[in-house]
Amino acid sequence: MSLAIQHIEKSYRNQQVLTDIQIDFQPETLYGLLGRNGAGKSTLLNVINSRIFADKGSITLDGENLIENEALQNRVFLTSEDNLYPKSIKVNQVLKLTEAFYGGFDWVFANHLIKAFKLNPKLSFKKLSTGYRSILKLIIALCVPVDYIFLDEPILGLDASHRDLFYRALIETYSERPRTFVISTHLIEEVANLISEFIIIDGGRVIEQKSAEDIQQSGATVSGAKELVEDFIQGMNIIGMDRLGSLVSYYIKDYQQQEVPDGISISPLNLQAYFVKLTQREEEK
Amino acid sequence: MSLAIQHIEKSYRNQQVLTDIQIDFQPETLYGLLGRNGAGKSTLLNVINSRIFADKGSITLDGENLIENEALQNRVFLTSEDNLYPKSIKVNQVLKLTEAFYGGFDWVFANHLIKAFKLNPKLSFKKLSTGYRSILKLIIALCVPVDYIFLDEPILGLDASHRDLFYRALIETYSERPRTFVISTHLIEEVANLISEFIIIDGGRVIEQKSAEDIQQSGATVSGAKELVEDFIQGMNIIGMDRLGSLVSYYIKDYQQQEVPDGISISPLNLQAYFVKLTQREEEK
Repeated sequence: MSLAIQHIEKSYRNQQVLTDIQIDFQPETLYGLLGRNGAGKSTLLNVINSRIFADKGSITLDGENLIENEALQNRVFLTSEDNLYPKSIKVNQVLKLTEAFYGGFDWVFANHLIKAFKLNPKLSFKKLSTGYRSILKLIIALCVPVDYIFLDEPILGLDASHRDLFYRALIETYSERPRTFVISTHLIEEVANLISEFIIIDGGRVIEQKSAEDIQQSGATVSGAKELVEDFIQGMNIIGMDRLGSLVSYYIKDYQQQEVPDGISISPLNLQAYFVKLTQREEEK
Repeated sequence: MSLAIQHIEKSYRNQQVLTDIQIDFQPETLYGLLGRNGAGKSTLLNVINSRIFADKGSITLDGENLIENEALQNRVFLTSEDNLYPKSIKVNQVLKLTEAFYGGFDWVFANHLIKAFKLNPKLSFKKLSTGYRSILKLIIALCVPVDYIFLDEPILGLDASHRDLFYRALIETYSERPRTFVISTHLIEEVANLISEFIIIDGGRVIEQKSAEDIQQSGATVSGAKELVEDFIQGMNIIGMDRLGSLVSYYIKDYQQQEVPDGISISPLNLQAYFVKLTQREEEK
């Protein structure tokens, strides 16, 4: 039982965009799909959801070929791009069309979210701001009766309170009805506590697939007063740092367990620092 | 000498979107424009840039009426929305059109940024991903020969390294040729150190206009080990909190100077926490 992506390749003209992509999406799991701008995330999501055809490779759902099997494709969902909606369609019409297409819709949760986000269901899609277009799309994604749900940058343009509301809604619906969500995002730290598996793609290849726990255990965050911390971390493999008030945190890869002076605290590695380091280009160093 | 927005009102059908907006944009200043989703930010930016007409009020540039004065309007720039570009236009054509329209363009800096961001100038606009559309728009905004530049969510869809690259490019071009930038964004903490003046709008009104320094001085961040901090802040006006490793930071409004126990550090107030609290709705409390 899984959604298996096998040896997917895709190129446009002479440019290779996806190379030998292999991912086995397990049921009832929350995935984070991370990658730099231009890494191939959106192309991969479009291939998995039959909006673009791959040049090579296969995609199977529970062992059956997904491509050209409409019944199976209805068990997989990807948030729409803006230009896939008719121009004058209204918010509530979009929801009804979704229900008709997927044979069901969680109206109770949708209406709860419409109210919480203050989305006006009578507005036409084209009148929605960037933030509210994202809100409509994430409401649909959380309410379709589908086993594998892909969200491409669901918090694009969302303010801080609305981002928080989305994360809580995701946890709520997942707890009630576990299913697989794959979330592509650039705000890595914000989703760090939701996600159990991270897939990192760079230059069209999967360069890492690890549990959030394994990544966080592959190093450490060393925090405390600036002088104290900077003295302690000498010679360590520093991959990033942050300030919080007058305190600093340094992110250390391959941290060795050791005795720690008073005033310094050790905690799991920061995911964003790990990702930035892993995908850094030569000229950015 | 300023770009003065006076008593601007705007409504759509029966809904008031902007109410008595008064802002005096000073020359050579970096502004942050903050607001919840739906607060009216994009409408305001469109009104200032003559893409939408206000129902009431006036906009003057150095004392002269901006509306219907094309020569003056060329001194004010707003990043374009996607649907304003012809579908098949290529990246380098967009740049050349911008130069023709504004009578100049900083090609040296533009080419430097195109390389740094790895933007392919031969691609057509519609083939660009969300992130690369943002990158094209911010390159244009940083290179037009204009005195007042408005950027509507310039980092939409940008990865962490690219966001950092943008912030550094903004500082670089501003230092060389000071002019006014007005940046609307939802990633408040990331721009906190760049911006000198914040304008906060909510429900279509300017609810606050303050220097970054004044906001940060209107409270404090109290950081340290969890138990120690939570003991110390009892009875204070808590507006938010964050964790960093095993440390916590509480954001306190109207903090009173006082003696502080060892192990606790006091620093300026967190801007995002301040903003979230200021614009929180009754049902979100």
